[in-house]
Amino acid sequence: MKRKICVVITARPSYSRIKTALTAINNHPELELQLVVAASALLDRYGNAVNNIEKDGFTITAKVFNVLEGENLTAAAKTTGIGILELSTVFNNLNPDIVVTVADRFETMATAISASYMNIPLAHIQGGEVTGNIDEKVRHAITKLADYHFVASKDAHQRVIKLGENPEFVFNTGCPSIDLAYEIQQTPVLDFDPIKKYGGVGGRPDLSQGYWVVMQHPVTTEVGDSRFHIEETLHAMHEINQPVFWFWPNVDAGADGTSTGIRSFRETHQLDNFHFFKNMEPQDFLKLLYSSKGLIGNSSVGIRECAFMGVPVVNIGSRQNSRERGNNVKDVGYSRIEILNSLKEIENSPKPKISTIYGNGDAGEKIAQLLSEIPLVFHKTITF
Amino acid sequence: MKRKICVVITARPSYSRIKTALTAINNHPELELQLVVAASALLDRYGNAVNNIEKDGFTITAKVFNVLEGENLTAAAKTTGIGILELSTVFNNLNPDIVVTVADRFETMATAISASYMNIPLAHIQGGEVTGNIDEKVRHAITKLADYHFVASKDAHQRVIKLGENPEFVFNTGCPSIDLAYEIQQTPVLDFDPIKKYGGVGGRPDLSQGYWVVMQHPVTTEVGDSRFHIEETLHAMHEINQPVFWFWPNVDAGADGTSTGIRSFRETHQLDNFHFFKNMEPQDFLKLLYSSKGLIGNSSVGIRECAFMGVPVVNIGSRQNSRERGNNVKDVGYSRIEILNSLKEIENSPKPKISTIYGNGDAGEKIAQLLSEIPLVFHKTITF
Amino acid sequence: MKRKICVVITARPSYSRIKTALTAINNHPELELQLVVAASALLDRYGNAVNNIEKDGFTITAKVFNVLEGENLTAAAKTTGIGILELSTVFNNLNPDIVVTVADRFETMATAISASYMNIPLAHIQGGEVTGNIDEKVRHAITKLADYHFVASKDAHQRVIKLGENPEFVFNTGCPSIDLAYEIQQTPVLDFDPIKKYGGVGGRPDLSQGYWVVMQHPVTTEVGDSRFHIEETLHAMHEINQPVFWFWPNVDAGADGTSTGIRSFRETHQLDNFHFFKNMEPQDFLKLLYSSKGLIGNSSVGIRECAFMGVPVVNIGSRQNSRERGNNVKDVGYSRIEILNSLKEIENSPKPKISTIYGNGDAGEKIAQLLSEIPLVFHKTITF
Amino acid sequence: MKRKICVVITARPSYSRIKTALTAINNHPELELQLVVAASALLDRYGNAVNNIEKDGFTITAKVFNVLEGENLTAAAKTTGIGILELSTVFNNLNPDIVVTVADRFETMATAISASYMNIPLAHIQGGEVTGNIDEKVRHAITKLADYHFVASKDAHQRVIKLGENPEFVFNTGCPSIDLAYEIQQTPVLDFDPIKKYGGVGGRPDLSQGYWVVMQHPVTTEVGDSRFHIEETLHAMHEINQPVFWFWPNVDAGADGTSTGIRSFRETHQLDNFHFFKNMEPQDFLKLLYSSKGLIGNSSVGIRECAFMGVPVVNIGSRQNSRERGNNVKDVGYSRIEILNSLKEIENSPKPKISTIYGNGDAGEKIAQLLSEIPLVFHKTITF
Repeated sequence: MKRKICVVITARPSYSRIKTALTAINNHPELELQLVVAASALLDRYGNAVNNIEKDGFTITAKVFNVLEGENLTAAAKTTGIGILELSTVFNNLNPDIVVTVADRFETMATAISASYMNIPLAHIQGGEVTGNIDEKVRHAITKLADYHFVASKDAHQRVIKLGENPEFVFNTGCPSIDLAYEIQQTPVLDFDPIKKYGGVGGRPDLSQGYWVVMQHPVTTEVGDSRFHIEETLHAMHEINQPVFWFWPNVDAGADGTSTGIRSFRETHQLDNFHFFKNMEPQDFLKLLYSSKGLIGNSSVGIRECAFMGVPVVNIGSRQNSRERGNNVKDVGYSRIEILNSLKEIENSPKPKISTIYGNGDAGEKIAQLLSEIPLVFHKTITF
Repeated sequence: MKRKICVVITARPSYSRIKTALTAINNHPELELQLVVAASALLDRYGNAVNNIEKDGFTITAKVFNVLEGENLTAAAKTTGIGILELSTVFNNLNPDIVVTVADRFETMATAISASYMNIPLAHIQGGEVTGNIDEKVRHAITKLADYHFVASKDAHQRVIKLGENPEFVFNTGCPSIDLAYEIQQTPVLDFDPIKKYGGVGGRPDLSQGYWVVMQHPVTTEVGDSRFHIEETLHAMHEINQPVFWFWPNVDAGADGTSTGIRSFRETHQLDNFHFFKNMEPQDFLKLLYSSKGLIGNSSVGIRECAFMGVPVVNIGSRQNSRERGNNVKDVGYSRIEILNSLKEIENSPKPKISTIYGNGDAGEKIAQLLSEIPLVFHKTITF
Repeated sequence: MKRKICVVITARPSYSRIKTALTAINNHPELELQLVVAASALLDRYGNAVNNIEKDGFTITAKVFNVLEGENLTAAAKTTGIGILELSTVFNNLNPDIVVTVADRFETMATAISASYMNIPLAHIQGGEVTGNIDEKVRHAITKLADYHFVASKDAHQRVIKLGENPEFVFNTGCPSIDLAYEIQQTPVLDFDPIKKYGGVGGRPDLSQGYWVVMQHPVTTEVGDSRFHIEETLHAMHEINQPVFWFWPNVDAGADGTSTGIRSFRETHQLDNFHFFKNMEPQDFLKLLYSSKGLIGNSSVGIRECAFMGVPVVNIGSRQNSRERGNNVKDVGYSRIEILNSLKEIENSPKPKISTIYGNGDAGEKIAQLLSEIPLVFHKTITF
Repeated sequence: MKRKICVVITARPSYSRIKTALTAINNHPELELQLVVAASALLDRYGNAVNNIEKDGFTITAKVFNVLEGENLTAAAKTTGIGILELSTVFNNLNPDIVVTVADRFETMATAISASYMNIPLAHIQGGEVTGNIDEKVRHAITKLADYHFVASKDAHQRVIKLGENPEFVFNTGCPSIDLAYEIQQTPVLDFDPIKKYGGVGGRPDLSQGYWVVMQHPVTTEVGDSRFHIEETLHAMHEINQPVFWFWPNVDAGADGTSTGIRSFRETHQLDNFHFFKNMEPQDFLKLLYSSKGLIGNSSVGIRECAFMGVPVVNIGSRQNSRERGNNVKDVGYSRIEILNSLKEIENSPKPKISTIYGNGDAGEKIAQLLSEIPLVFHKTITF
């Protein structure tokens, strides 16, 4: 009998971070994939990851609507509560052998609690990293609930073990998102017209001299500041006056500040060089990054995939705080001047070297193989 | 302006474990107590702790009904989800400066998630201990969500720091439950008739030759076994044929196995020496223990208060697994023979020495003072 | 393609009231039964109807745990809220052509709201009756949400039409519970030993001179009174000093008053003539009634099945208020004297005549046939 | 002691429909207002009614976030379920003497269920009307749950009584929204610049030759059609080529179709004559209507306030189906041609006469007075 592996995807970025593992599970002769799509991954205004998932040929076993409107911190907590109510029923029906939860967004806690409370062995992808903000609390709390840890770097591997987890069940598989970057690496051509393929709104800048990509999310511990933060970045990108592809933020408490900031800036400034996208298929996004002058914002893609692809990154503020970096990253504060200076510095520097700190491109395969072999356990004791 | 300290009590045993801290908060000139009573602490069949709380003169700020019936693992998860929904609203209305959560029962996770997701500084009482079972996962996960840690022993103090918490915010206050034991210690007389005062059902045994106390909870990771476990203990106590005061178990997945086991045993055996209680006020329970021949079961009271009071304990099974013990504890498996042998050994040994591993009797005062002084923070980064 | 008929059963009594319809749906060549068991029908302390359902050979499509503990009015409301959350997901997955909801217990509203809000045609069994109390509000509100009405009497038929429903979709099928009574009618022998088969607790009375059956539920609009009410009945039955089979109440706000009243009376009175049951399979229960001297309490079985079987009934209080009655029913208040007098009157009267006001015994067949034929609609306008 | 009147507002239009009653309750010496704001009334993208409420000087007693994202029918059901969970807690804390629910949006059912299940007397504003679609089911179901009925027309008054309600508790107060129209009637000048005051997006049309107002909501029973419907209206308004103030739709299942239709039309057409608003304070909205050439869409404002103010209305489709109309209303289907023809007809006709079918302008006062006098009851029996 095949092991039933239930993977819960709750947001667009989590999908790219797990995609190659999903494929590998699907292809593995001893595994059966149960794919649950939930939360903002189902919602139009956050990029409707579910469409990409279906287009990529995955069968969705269950959909869970649990995002409570409000985009404040109370709603984030309640979204997690509803997630537990719903996922418990789903797990009860699907009866999986292992549940897999990805990364550290607030609502992933619902997956972790439902599985661990129901005595279902829980695997956590991408524990052990350090970032600051609420993600930091969520990530390590999930580590303490999880039975297996598939981490993305040596550093993370050590940290999870230091957290008292049994080293036997902590595996440095690398990050599955690097698997995608590895594929791009093979044929790194921007072989599509982003605006034609993805629509979006804004100008149609001339790309012949290169372009920048911006992806900046609100930071949950600084809710009130999210509008100010985004405006500084908008000013910086406006001032450098070069083509920009700008991506809308995730559904997080504070997204309204970010979104409002962007909308209002668009009304009051001439932004012919800006084009705004809601989302993009992961591979296309990586191709877009690969051919860009650099990524600006606070997405973990800058830390991870961009390191492997050698794409320069201006990393703004505290969101990726202490995550391990390659030498492609320049850390700056929120001010437009700092951002602008970094952009200029990038223009005057050679392309950064490639780094494999987050994996070699075979993480998905490794994870599937481990899921087929590891003993099924849901009982653990701290090692110290 | 006084700091608003919101303490959430979700079960009868948590109340005794925090009671002296509640009093100290109430009496502290710079603190205002917001007392939330939730989950099984409100329910008749789990001892209705809320009655004791009101009788003790505390004002209850809000009541939260969130226990989903079913007494299976799915219901435990859902109870936690409903708890998050409800407590988020409560916290949003009360707007506390600090939220306090007690110990490690599954539903305390709801308090921890609501507070930490809403950026309210979270204090955790009794982190850092080791027990095994789901409590183990819950306890350490809450440590990773909490901002302040009021632990009960040196061992726990070290463990929380090892978990990557900032040592500045980890305090070995001792356990407030020891404060109660300390009071009993001063006048350790059984100055009430337990049956007269608390009713209950069963025989009215002759106490002149001494009596035993039993409190055995189901162990959540071994749900199916709970009926077998309780029957072994019933047989042992039946065989030794001495007076027994028996306490009903908590509301946990598996309680039905335990309860059914007890009920069925009562129907088929002559139990004149047994008297069954639903619950008892904390001080009375400690007095009862103090004057007893010993405590049998798997309650943490055996590890903690009994250590301080020098009461012999037969600790059954894995529930208190690796918690630090005084020399008053004999650890046994679930079999009636092992239990019986330990009872006999206790009868032939001198009373154990008093141990202060879980505090000196001033934990409540220490906690209140710390809550009035510690800087308000809700942002943290792992120390390694 | 078969029509998918999703029937939601939320309580023990609803099961007997729909059972023959379930069988007929299962046997119908053009129908597929989707059976959802929810709320107290899943819970041990309310008779675990789910066990009977499975023993009767029905396949359960989904189980929904939604009873919030508390047994107060707030918990009843919240149970309904959780029911909506859960059933919406269930309906979304099962995608039924018609949803069937039974009778008027508070939590059946969850079925009605989920189905009607999701544009799924909704059939209501047993609308149009009059009883008083919250059931009254619930029943008629469900009528206004439902698209088809399968009512149990002429009186109910007229009332639903008066409520503005399209007469085309109001059908007097009779009550499926009468179908069971019809079967009993054929071979009305008490062919089992109730105590041997169903256990229960209490004395083992001598049945040779006949026995009474009691089933009395708390009345939700008089919560505080439920303990007093049950005590009056207990006194009456104690005084007449004849064998009694007593059934525990439903999970309703107030059940605790009823249960506590019973438990406490048992501790203080000698009740050798009383035997207490949690529940019984519907057919066995009807056989037990058929051979009894009469039914005491406020169950609708007294009004309905007992009319068809000619069993005398002492109907207590307001719960069955204005439901149509056969001449087998004596209505009394809550006082022990009134109850006692009615018992004596019954003993001195001939057996009542059989009445078919609630059907002829073919309701299940009629309902299944209608479900296979009626046009699928979920849009309606009031007729006046 | 003052009677505590708890009014629950769940959407922007409900606020204007109850506003003068809120003022009258606030001013009444024997009443205390408990104002609960919930659901889309709290959300930015549906006009944030809560801001208007606060600006108007009302104190908000509790806020309830319960809108589940998804904008499909399942989410509408779940939003109602969450509403029940939350409102039950709110009512339990506020302990009101009477709860007031307004009109017939799907989520108002949550107010009705929580109040009636908790035995709190429930008043319903605007029952008894006829419209078709899910509102129709919701409205009459709430009538069957409510204890008092404050209806807006003679027709509605008769219908509620026909539904079996006690005539003693059915009151034709008129609609409080007419109270606002009455005030406008006194000084009907457009004394503000709508674009300056409310922002919005789109062109700045020249108003000197008059303008139209459009407000068209999706119809829940025709979800799939909502995009097509809105496009027809867009084409009609585009073709007539006169100034238009266009208001975004409510949060209903299907709003996405409507919103997407509007957004996409804007991208592909030159709409210099269109200006889009999210919302407007009720009085300003009425002033805008008063001075307009007419209202196009399916808002009940067209049926109600516009009748009293003599504003021409092109009423599209089934949403206001059988509501009583003044002679200001032209009913049309969804096609652009029908709409266009009606616009031209209006231009060539004199202003319609004023109608008082929905009240005289003193509804708020009447409601407050009744709330202070009616006996407190929560128990009722159908009258037939």
